[in-house]
Amino acid sequence: MRMHAEADREHDTATPAAPAPPVRKFRAEDAGYRWDAVPLKAYKPAGTHFQDITRQTLFGEAEELSSELRYFEVGPGGHSTLERHEHVHAVLILQGRGRVMVGEAVHAIEPFDLVHVPPQTWHQFRADADAPLGFLCLVACDRDRPHRPDADEAEALRRSPHVGDFVRL
Amino acid sequence: MRMHAEADREHDTATPAAPAPPVRKFRAEDAGYRWDAVPLKAYKPAGTHFQDITRQTLFGEAEELSSELRYFEVGPGGHSTLERHEHVHAVLILQGRGRVMVGEAVHAIEPFDLVHVPPQTWHQFRADADAPLGFLCLVACDRDRPHRPDADEAEALRRSPHVGDFVRL
Repeated sequence: MRMHAEADREHDTATPAAPAPPVRKFRAEDAGYRWDAVPLKAYKPAGTHFQDITRQTLFGEAEELSSELRYFEVGPGGHSTLERHEHVHAVLILQGRGRVMVGEAVHAIEPFDLVHVPPQTWHQFRADADAPLGFLCLVACDRDRPHRPDADEAEALRRSPHVGDFVRL
Repeated sequence: MRMHAEADREHDTATPAAPAPPVRKFRAEDAGYRWDAVPLKAYKPAGTHFQDITRQTLFGEAEELSSELRYFEVGPGGHSTLERHEHVHAVLILQGRGRVMVGEAVHAIEPFDLVHVPPQTWHQFRADADAPLGFLCLVACDRDRPHRPDADEAEALRRSPHVGDFVRL
């Protein structure tokens, strides 16, 4: 399996050379959750079938970790890309409410709930209409590229009695 | 450097064979934060110079991750063991207030603040007197054992103008 750093496919600038300072303070702004010395980034390049998401990398290779802890914030009614990949996601909801599709089921999610996405499992997060959905997502630094549904897979997802009404393709 | 799984030195039972279910719900109980299907564990064996802490492993090897995400809850006025080690800690505060010593400085911490403990850096968490301090802590699954201060190191820490009043040995 060919592995790619996330920087290869997302709007990263150069990886910061310095590790994080010992303490970075949190603040809740009108525009969303922010931390000292944590840059706000685009979720993915435009055109990858998501809506209204920001990304902030809280910890990663700069701190000598083999995993990255990212914070994603999905605007009201927004959603992440529907995709699957070999690497797993370990998620903890920080704010808001929404739903997540993992495989053939949709689950309601709210603060501090845990979500585990196993390898090669279709998944998509969606914020409720009235509030943003913010969550931590832990992944391996060295991971494979996500795969989006091809035409046949998209058709099968749309026809699913369990997730057909939920998916945004 | 010889590495040891945490199970080798803490009160773990056997590692669960099954990965986490897709969604595990959170609940705030009087006794502290809890999650479905997450066992509550002792922080460390008795006698390792800590006070009033519980530990819950939210994600780890069972979910095919190379890192573990743990949740620690320190009771009001309680503290973690003062120690250092080669592996780093990446911490996000979830509830309460307290202070953390990282090297030669003490910092106030509150919800969603980030704390990074670099390799071989003395550190200790303490909850304020009036509330528990709960935090996520990300570590590598494969990591070295912590080192507590020997007599000379303890004396040097007690004499420090920066952290001498803070440390609990």
